[in-house]
Amino acid sequence: MADLVTFGETMLRFSPPDEERLEIADQYDVDVAGAESNVAVAAQRLGLEATWLSKLPDSPIGRKVAGELRSHGVSVDVVWDDSPERRQGTYYLEQGRPPRGSEVIYDRAHASVTTATADDLPTEALEGADCFHTTGITPALSATLATTTAELLERAGSSGALTSFDVNFRSNLWTPTEAKEVLTELFPAIDILVVAERDARVVLDADGDAEAIARKLDDEYGFEVVLVTRGSDGALALSEGEAFTQPTYEAPDAYPVGTGDSFVGGFLSQYLQGEPVQKALSWGAATAALKRSIPGDMATIAVQEVREVIGGTTESLSR
Amino acid sequence: MADLVTFGETMLRFSPPDEERLEIADQYDVDVAGAESNVAVAAQRLGLEATWLSKLPDSPIGRKVAGELRSHGVSVDVVWDDSPERRQGTYYLEQGRPPRGSEVIYDRAHASVTTATADDLPTEALEGADCFHTTGITPALSATLATTTAELLERAGSSGALTSFDVNFRSNLWTPTEAKEVLTELFPAIDILVVAERDARVVLDADGDAEAIARKLDDEYGFEVVLVTRGSDGALALSEGEAFTQPTYEAPDAYPVGTGDSFVGGFLSQYLQGEPVQKALSWGAATAALKRSIPGDMATIAVQEVREVIGGTTESLSR
Amino acid sequence: MADLVTFGETMLRFSPPDEERLEIADQYDVDVAGAESNVAVAAQRLGLEATWLSKLPDSPIGRKVAGELRSHGVSVDVVWDDSPERRQGTYYLEQGRPPRGSEVIYDRAHASVTTATADDLPTEALEGADCFHTTGITPALSATLATTTAELLERAGSSGALTSFDVNFRSNLWTPTEAKEVLTELFPAIDILVVAERDARVVLDADGDAEAIARKLDDEYGFEVVLVTRGSDGALALSEGEAFTQPTYEAPDAYPVGTGDSFVGGFLSQYLQGEPVQKALSWGAATAALKRSIPGDMATIAVQEVREVIGGTTESLSR
Amino acid sequence: MADLVTFGETMLRFSPPDEERLEIADQYDVDVAGAESNVAVAAQRLGLEATWLSKLPDSPIGRKVAGELRSHGVSVDVVWDDSPERRQGTYYLEQGRPPRGSEVIYDRAHASVTTATADDLPTEALEGADCFHTTGITPALSATLATTTAELLERAGSSGALTSFDVNFRSNLWTPTEAKEVLTELFPAIDILVVAERDARVVLDADGDAEAIARKLDDEYGFEVVLVTRGSDGALALSEGEAFTQPTYEAPDAYPVGTGDSFVGGFLSQYLQGEPVQKALSWGAATAALKRSIPGDMATIAVQEVREVIGGTTESLSR
Amino acid sequence: MADLVTFGETMLRFSPPDEERLEIADQYDVDVAGAESNVAVAAQRLGLEATWLSKLPDSPIGRKVAGELRSHGVSVDVVWDDSPERRQGTYYLEQGRPPRGSEVIYDRAHASVTTATADDLPTEALEGADCFHTTGITPALSATLATTTAELLERAGSSGALTSFDVNFRSNLWTPTEAKEVLTELFPAIDILVVAERDARVVLDADGDAEAIARKLDDEYGFEVVLVTRGSDGALALSEGEAFTQPTYEAPDAYPVGTGDSFVGGFLSQYLQGEPVQKALSWGAATAALKRSIPGDMATIAVQEVREVIGGTTESLSR
Amino acid sequence: MADLVTFGETMLRFSPPDEERLEIADQYDVDVAGAESNVAVAAQRLGLEATWLSKLPDSPIGRKVAGELRSHGVSVDVVWDDSPERRQGTYYLEQGRPPRGSEVIYDRAHASVTTATADDLPTEALEGADCFHTTGITPALSATLATTTAELLERAGSSGALTSFDVNFRSNLWTPTEAKEVLTELFPAIDILVVAERDARVVLDADGDAEAIARKLDDEYGFEVVLVTRGSDGALALSEGEAFTQPTYEAPDAYPVGTGDSFVGGFLSQYLQGEPVQKALSWGAATAALKRSIPGDMATIAVQEVREVIGGTTESLSR
Repeated sequence: MADLVTFGETMLRFSPPDEERLEIADQYDVDVAGAESNVAVAAQRLGLEATWLSKLPDSPIGRKVAGELRSHGVSVDVVWDDSPERRQGTYYLEQGRPPRGSEVIYDRAHASVTTATADDLPTEALEGADCFHTTGITPALSATLATTTAELLERAGSSGALTSFDVNFRSNLWTPTEAKEVLTELFPAIDILVVAERDARVVLDADGDAEAIARKLDDEYGFEVVLVTRGSDGALALSEGEAFTQPTYEAPDAYPVGTGDSFVGGFLSQYLQGEPVQKALSWGAATAALKRSIPGDMATIAVQEVREVIGGTTESLSR
Repeated sequence: MADLVTFGETMLRFSPPDEERLEIADQYDVDVAGAESNVAVAAQRLGLEATWLSKLPDSPIGRKVAGELRSHGVSVDVVWDDSPERRQGTYYLEQGRPPRGSEVIYDRAHASVTTATADDLPTEALEGADCFHTTGITPALSATLATTTAELLERAGSSGALTSFDVNFRSNLWTPTEAKEVLTELFPAIDILVVAERDARVVLDADGDAEAIARKLDDEYGFEVVLVTRGSDGALALSEGEAFTQPTYEAPDAYPVGTGDSFVGGFLSQYLQGEPVQKALSWGAATAALKRSIPGDMATIAVQEVREVIGGTTESLSR
Repeated sequence: MADLVTFGETMLRFSPPDEERLEIADQYDVDVAGAESNVAVAAQRLGLEATWLSKLPDSPIGRKVAGELRSHGVSVDVVWDDSPERRQGTYYLEQGRPPRGSEVIYDRAHASVTTATADDLPTEALEGADCFHTTGITPALSATLATTTAELLERAGSSGALTSFDVNFRSNLWTPTEAKEVLTELFPAIDILVVAERDARVVLDADGDAEAIARKLDDEYGFEVVLVTRGSDGALALSEGEAFTQPTYEAPDAYPVGTGDSFVGGFLSQYLQGEPVQKALSWGAATAALKRSIPGDMATIAVQEVREVIGGTTESLSR
Repeated sequence: MADLVTFGETMLRFSPPDEERLEIADQYDVDVAGAESNVAVAAQRLGLEATWLSKLPDSPIGRKVAGELRSHGVSVDVVWDDSPERRQGTYYLEQGRPPRGSEVIYDRAHASVTTATADDLPTEALEGADCFHTTGITPALSATLATTTAELLERAGSSGALTSFDVNFRSNLWTPTEAKEVLTELFPAIDILVVAERDARVVLDADGDAEAIARKLDDEYGFEVVLVTRGSDGALALSEGEAFTQPTYEAPDAYPVGTGDSFVGGFLSQYLQGEPVQKALSWGAATAALKRSIPGDMATIAVQEVREVIGGTTESLSR
Repeated sequence: MADLVTFGETMLRFSPPDEERLEIADQYDVDVAGAESNVAVAAQRLGLEATWLSKLPDSPIGRKVAGELRSHGVSVDVVWDDSPERRQGTYYLEQGRPPRGSEVIYDRAHASVTTATADDLPTEALEGADCFHTTGITPALSATLATTTAELLERAGSSGALTSFDVNFRSNLWTPTEAKEVLTELFPAIDILVVAERDARVVLDADGDAEAIARKLDDEYGFEVVLVTRGSDGALALSEGEAFTQPTYEAPDAYPVGTGDSFVGGFLSQYLQGEPVQKALSWGAATAALKRSIPGDMATIAVQEVREVIGGTTESLSR
Repeated sequence: MADLVTFGETMLRFSPPDEERLEIADQYDVDVAGAESNVAVAAQRLGLEATWLSKLPDSPIGRKVAGELRSHGVSVDVVWDDSPERRQGTYYLEQGRPPRGSEVIYDRAHASVTTATADDLPTEALEGADCFHTTGITPALSATLATTTAELLERAGSSGALTSFDVNFRSNLWTPTEAKEVLTELFPAIDILVVAERDARVVLDADGDAEAIARKLDDEYGFEVVLVTRGSDGALALSEGEAFTQPTYEAPDAYPVGTGDSFVGGFLSQYLQGEPVQKALSWGAATAALKRSIPGDMATIAVQEVREVIGGTTESLSR
């Protein structure tokens, strides 16, 4: 009875507190972070029943990942890996402020999830789900996962679910050429495509403005919705030939990681309930804006807060 | 499809870090603590499907309580209180070491849960549950909750669930006389009675040794199991006329709060799966012993750890 | 021999560290916060002898409140409540940054202070005091406190003290209509009225600009001074028919809670020493500006710092 | 109207958190610590009106010391040193556990207090005080302070106060020979002498058991009370020729610093109220035992806790 | 001009603060930990010039490892790995207390060091070094490292250095059979063999008491010194046919990780300076005892502390 | 074989966490801070072999200073002071935000280093060094250090090293007149003079713009390079009669302490390797800009980061 099933890797994230450097800090904050579970968390908090599908090491570290996601109400449907080689993917994040850049060091190779096949996974939640969502990170992680992604997209489609896919190009994982080859093979199975304008240019060789990009992708592959995210310039959705635009809401630069996932979670929370595209876009944008004020990868928000951002009724201090 | 449904109040718990005094500390650790949710957490971690039934304020604080319990896998079935008077019960715990005592300051009067009626609560999980569990704290919290407790015991019994009840006398909430009057009225509806030897003497006027106490209570009220807990002296269960004893496993004094609840959770995790009383007792004792090495109110344990304590195979450091 | 006696509730304040959410944080910073004690602290640090009058639970938590205020040099004259129902009022503060609002959750109902009568309180310090100050929060907390407030204002007046009152409307405690009814009955006993421009409009049905508001209130009720605070637009004082204005000093948005109380403390610190209204206003504004750079509710400042803000001589780093 | 006036240096104390080493830790806990202020704090918390007399740098650091002592209710009567050479004495404490020793690094030379003369100090509280207390640390800190100590003892005696003096030999500050010369010159002005058995042997050339030591000192110098503290062996008081002994209460080794000061504070709290020597000894011993369970230098205790230790009625956990 | 060169892997170590569980903690303490660098640190602090040889990822994380070791004065001679696959090995340590065991989760597969060949490494320090030390962990990490270990032992021997080797069997890395095969091939190149009594039995099929084990190993492979460590039962050294025994010094269980490495570092610090075996043993034992009172993997000690442990002159608190 | 030898005092620095006040905080962050060691750290991290020369107390606190500097790769050549009067200089830093200023309280009088003579110091590294650097703080600390500074400048010059000197006027240590007298006597021995424009005016009576100042100083004393730093207005270097200017790179106000030292370290890292003055200036400016984004006194940077700032290629988040 899930409304939304997402599939992908979720990592432990290590960050030095405050603005300390990774090299210097003696304590790291430990968070849980994954593009697809971020989407599930945002969507769950905004009213959907969300399930996250994955493979985790059978260890306190794997249980930590599961527990954090569950605490947001997400159902965690995972294979527990008890092989001797099991490992939890991690990444190090050092938040800079200009002129110092932020630093991301992935340590996710050989993680348990990279060996997950479609048959391993407890995919019961796919039956009857409204939507299946994953991202371009997943097939980039291993050849096995590329196959699994394709298979799950197919199964989801067969069982009547919408399929949603965020390109999410990661240059640390593969080249644009590799990405294009794998991803475009998946496109025919995808209903909702999310792509950052920059990724569309770099990976998918699209050009022109956001609308041109969306129309080109739609022409070429045929989607129900193409959603082009444009950073601080907002977003554009192409649906049934009509283009809808959405500016960003004012938001801080404080906690940028996870902004895009929150956008998708907010969008799907409305779109899957049959709300108009324009409304879904505004929920996506408001969720993304709120995320940027919240530490960590996930949008720990409430429905009421999204409504206030959209309505412009947030009070700075109410007592 | 819950195996175990528990009902009661869960509080926020504020404790100064390390051994600092409440009066001096500038930061408090924030935990989530409730006798019945503690039982649910222990049981869930040991293999049951557990649901916790309650009423919480519709606020970040109430959501915090729900989130923490969910992180252990427990299903949280609550009414969200959005009345202007909604409040989250709290307590302050200062952990002393002799000659300084530990200090508990309850601040739980007027909490949202104290107004919960049986009809308010989302009791769907009771249908088909194997067991319903609550404690003597719940009816002590308000007249409304005394009624609700009686009604839920009845409903649980009617729908074929075992009913389990831990006397858990709290002298800060009521007098022994008040407690006895209310509790003994509930006893006919109860299948499994858990009572600390001291409470049995003080509240229920039982005397003699643990077995005598169990037999007396059984004679008087008729239970499927009477479980008498005896602190560091172990525990005794009376089942179908037969007495089973269980010594404690060696355990530190470090984190005593929640020991009894962990015992019950460990016991039920086996008893409800049809395991013999003696085995269930050993799981209760091992879970309780492990709890005493773990900060907070809850037994954040794994099945494997319980097995090792019982088998005496815990390695102090394995690498 | 107090110069200033203030009366009201002081709460424990729980806030997540940094910008974390209340729902997520595992530690809360614990501060001490109350409109009237905030005024006492600011005034004491700026040279007055200040006494804070209240009722506190006889517990480590109550002692914590007393100790924090004493550390600033304020005399703490309280009744210690040792009834079984004693409780310390608290509030939760989550500091947001746009688009996320800040969140205040009061948990102050049934606090010990709500039962304080004028006869309970150790009011010796009122004898010979120069000034008695309280706020509109106090009578809003309980019917008992409304009576107590009236009685203390009368006693203070009788013993020759100036009476000062900050309207401080709190929509979480009562409606504008309720507030107006209770407060305007107190006005005849008040010499110095402090009111936020917004509260004057919402609660006291005043309109026009700040000066018009001040003159209307003065005409209607007759005050020695009417002080209208206007947030980032500064403040206006009406004294003996003459209006004095004061712009704000540049200040961050970082720690807004307690700004208004610091203004009053700074103003009174000069006014009660016979300094001109214009000078008192500048001390109020400088104290308020400094407060906004300091964590917590209270203005932990030094006289020298206020002088430097007024003189524009603060050095960003002197060594 | 002080009951007890103490005089001496109070330092900032820097300690690494937990059991970390000074060399490694990146944060130090900051406490306030001084033999004489420790006595004042214990006595104030146990019912006396205590005043602490000293000289502090006029700086945030000096204000920190004053604030911490005030938070316990102690009156802080100090000269504020605004000379360019003003400095706050500090010490570093690393708490070891065997076989690693604890480490104390004093950094107290040239502190503001070392220049305090009797005429500098605001000694009004001495008028009408019941008792004046200082320790052998004070005259060891500088020649000026040795003179000041003598003068204050004399003034206190002249104004009718009892004079109390704890030998408190510190080998880091002077040699036994130096100490003996200075201290024995002060003895004629002292009514209550407190001395550790070990110091009596090392500094005062006393031998025999505690009673022999007390009698010898009394014979030689003539005191109203001689109090010999014996570490874990308890204490002995000689008063009007009669010896009273007191065993220690069971206590942890956790936080030993300040044990002796707490003993003196507890003893004086009763002795100055006219309670029998034996009772005063038991209050001293109980206060000292409680101190050892409390982080920092000071006995943050309540009267009730002392009573429970003496009565053996402390409950490990009451709820 | 190094006295001692060690070679091996050094990991980042993540531990929850205090006694929290890995699954629950939101912050991990970050330490630096490796058997061979632990030896280098202890030896350097006790007077040798120590160099640590390894391969580290060219990243803030790799620099963190280097910086921590350098802070103890150790020379860090490493190849900086800037390949895309570079990674820093880590491990998770959860410190339990009985009945809860401690938990070690290695995440060190594929670390940069596993690809280090003898020709990669900057081995200049080996020229003229007095001693080269590594452990059985190193060849267990990869086939490449097994070869490198053999080669470095040979080079060290050729250049006239003593070779020291600690068997350090890790069951998470290989089986006893695998270990035996690889290690015994290295033995002919080794002068000083260190082996835990348990490892000697499990891996090397030795039996009898410690002396019998030492003699058997010496007979079979011919060493200059065989050092058998026996946990809390002390240690035995066989040197030129003579057996020397050393009991342990009293020490806490608090921080056991790194005890064995500290023993070796303490032993070598004396042995390499030509001190008698018996004295070297006592330095080993004292260093090991001190380590157990110090958080982290490394012995952050001073020469004076070792002397005091051996002399029994540690003062619990000196001031 | 050092490229750069610096000489001066390094202090422990105590700061309250976040924006808390020194008076209120219960923990202080502990850093290591000194103008000359800051230069050494920046230069070492940017490719030079740097040595820091000084005198430290033989204590855990002195070892802490040495360890922190070593962790950056700097060689620490110090006399260890084991006299009873040994002390470690410290300073308190409270970071304000307007209108609250930052506060620096020095506690460095009588530090061990103030007694260091040229003959005490282990100056071997000066032989063959490329450059010797110190600042105007050093001779201001004591008469002994003024002599030592002069002597080391002379020795360095004699052995063929460039001498570099940063005026670094500290009004808390001496008056402009005192500074001028001492410093101008040192100028003949100096090759590279660094001076803040403001110090040039206040201390050296220079006027006109930066170039005029540089030319005047060059005319009067004859330097190889005069480097005038101008805060946010950039810097100017005069070399062989030619003036080079450098604007600042955009940087936050967050962590200003140490900006100037980082500039010098960056400049020297290139200048000493024979790079053109203009390039050296850009490295100075980029290093300074990065420093302002990094907590503490030291520039914990990597060469790559400096290159990216200069090239404008820093990515805000790369993954």
